Amino acid sequence: MKERIYNFNAGPAALPLPVLEEIQGEFLNFKGSGMSITEVSHRSKWFDEVMVDATERVRRLLRLDEGFHVLFLQGGASLQFCMIPMNLLLEGQSADYVNTGTWATKAIKEAKAQGKTVKVAASSEDKNFSYIPRNIHFSPDAAYTHITSNNTIKGTQWASFPDTGGVPLICDMSSDIMSRPFDVSPFGLIYAGAQKNLGPAGATLVIIRQDMVDRVPQHLPTLLKYTTFLESNSMFNTPPCFAIYTLQLVLKWLEETIGGLEKMEEINREKASLLYRVIDESGFYKGTAEKESRSVMNVTFRLPSEDLEKQFVQQALEHGLGGLKGHRSVGGCRASIYNATGLDGIKALVDFMEEFARKNG
Amino acid sequence: MKERIYNFNAGPAALPLPVLEEIQGEFLNFKGSGMSITEVSHRSKWFDEVMVDATERVRRLLRLDEGFHVLFLQGGASLQFCMIPMNLLLEGQSADYVNTGTWATKAIKEAKAQGKTVKVAASSEDKNFSYIPRNIHFSPDAAYTHITSNNTIKGTQWASFPDTGGVPLICDMSSDIMSRPFDVSPFGLIYAGAQKNLGPAGATLVIIRQDMVDRVPQHLPTLLKYTTFLESNSMFNTPPCFAIYTLQLVLKWLEETIGGLEKMEEINREKASLLYRVIDESGFYKGTAEKESRSVMNVTFRLPSEDLEKQFVQQALEHGLGGLKGHRSVGGCRASIYNATGLDGIKALVDFMEEFARKNG
Repeated sequence: MKERIYNFNAGPAALPLPVLEEIQGEFLNFKGSGMSITEVSHRSKWFDEVMVDATERVRRLLRLDEGFHVLFLQGGASLQFCMIPMNLLLEGQSADYVNTGTWATKAIKEAKAQGKTVKVAASSEDKNFSYIPRNIHFSPDAAYTHITSNNTIKGTQWASFPDTGGVPLICDMSSDIMSRPFDVSPFGLIYAGAQKNLGPAGATLVIIRQDMVDRVPQHLPTLLKYTTFLESNSMFNTPPCFAIYTLQLVLKWLEETIGGLEKMEEINREKASLLYRVIDESGFYKGTAEKESRSVMNVTFRLPSEDLEKQFVQQALEHGLGGLKGHRSVGGCRASIYNATGLDGIKALVDFMEEFARKNG
Repeated sequence: MKERIYNFNAGPAALPLPVLEEIQGEFLNFKGSGMSITEVSHRSKWFDEVMVDATERVRRLLRLDEGFHVLFLQGGASLQFCMIPMNLLLEGQSADYVNTGTWATKAIKEAKAQGKTVKVAASSEDKNFSYIPRNIHFSPDAAYTHITSNNTIKGTQWASFPDTGGVPLICDMSSDIMSRPFDVSPFGLIYAGAQKNLGPAGATLVIIRQDMVDRVPQHLPTLLKYTTFLESNSMFNTPPCFAIYTLQLVLKWLEETIGGLEKMEEINREKASLLYRVIDESGFYKGTAEKESRSVMNVTFRLPSEDLEKQFVQQALEHGLGGLKGHRSVGGCRASIYNATGLDGIKALVDFMEEFARKNG
């Protein structure tokens, strides 16, 4: 059995090794319960402690005040594309969406498919979604403004969040939540599939502000109402226990080993800048996102030919560097460098990239 | 750290120890990928093999022909309560539901909340859901007939499935799927949350017949349409990989170690009869379900007093027998004895029950 590789997958993605080792160590007997975490009741004291700790860590890390609620759902960001307009965009209202790529496009499509009124306030489709729009005119009376904080496929990211003049921001943070500190106060709702920065696939973190909760219509199906999850502490029915447990350990690692979001951002910035420097200085690799819009999480780049890209991905894997192929919809190469990717992995990738460019440039 | 206990939880529930050990053994490096199963891409060959194998095992174990499709969703049975009428009960149609307890009641409520026409064809509410209704008159023109095959809370189970005269059966089999062989041909749709007989919480198995697929309206939200999961091989978005992987290993254990559903049923019947015999012969314990409707999965019983029930649950745990408290809505005691509970656990419980009755009878 070969060793672990450096994992640059876009999601599901690398998890911190100490977290994986902790899960493995207690997998047959969770906290002296005599059961695996996969076998304990979600109503037991064992799982209750997991839920409480996970929730408190989210609150501390993001500095949430009492006006915000932390929920755990299933169905990924894609189910949120549908639940958000269903719960928060009411008859006679209109919402602004900013289209920065595949995921934003899907979010817009789901809102429209429900017959909701959606205005695309800005889009970077004109340049193949290679940048984040600036100087956007937002509708002052929108029910909310929806943005995607980081775009995994095109490798772009909002460097700072836009001023909507008081209109609640709703944000898909699936691929960069917990990668940096930010001011939550303008956000009405933040959501994130766990499988990039938080844990394994199967849980969706939703942070919702009380004024958004107040909008939720009574008549919606039970499992599609945010109020159901709020009123039941995310346990109206059995939650995805293992995914939440892993997320809890990842957040513990983030708080106690890394030291919080300021420190995490510092490390993430260093990781990204090492890679972008190789790209920019190489004369061989070419970044695909505009420099001011570059993502700190997903570094997308091309090589001089598709044939070289294929060789690059293949030889990288032989060097223990996996997951470097770009998204199937765009091709090229991509290094996803979420929180759990350490500087050691980045340095190994930098070395490989420099060597590959020398040999093939 | 104390040893593993015998786990009689109602769900999440016991998993086969060899499955847990296999997960633990390969947790840091899945099949030589150099990654944990929680870290591999859902579009990788590693996960593809898991999905294909899980699907094929479901097909083989239940003897599904080409007319049936196997899907993996999220959200548990509770989301199915909403998706079924949304997808399969169309304008102008009516559906029959049989009310055998809490879960059936919720399924009925969700259909009605959507403004759908629902007829409760039979109910055992008159006797506190302690039996399965017989000689039901089903509507010959219903869009479908919905039943709950096993009722975890009240400890009742359909010994055989009713003849609906060609109307498609839709069945919540969350708590007894894969516990016995049955003829799938009358079923239009079968669904099951994984966390009882299949794996950990977080995945929902849906088996759907082609004529049901043909009903699905185009206009539904993407993540709430069965066709979305069918057309994408359950990977429109990231599936709950770890839950599906565990389910795959549980089904492998069921096929290769147990030897299939006939063998599993034989073992399950023996397990249940050992417990019901103690109850019936004790003069101390009292079964709560009518004998002909008794569940082979959830053995529900009372003791002479609530105080004794409390002592029973507490002392059982001290003897390494966990999860024997009845559902919080009904009290009493309950031994959930799904597939993964072995005869050794049953025998330990029988011994304890006999001793407790002797001491306190």
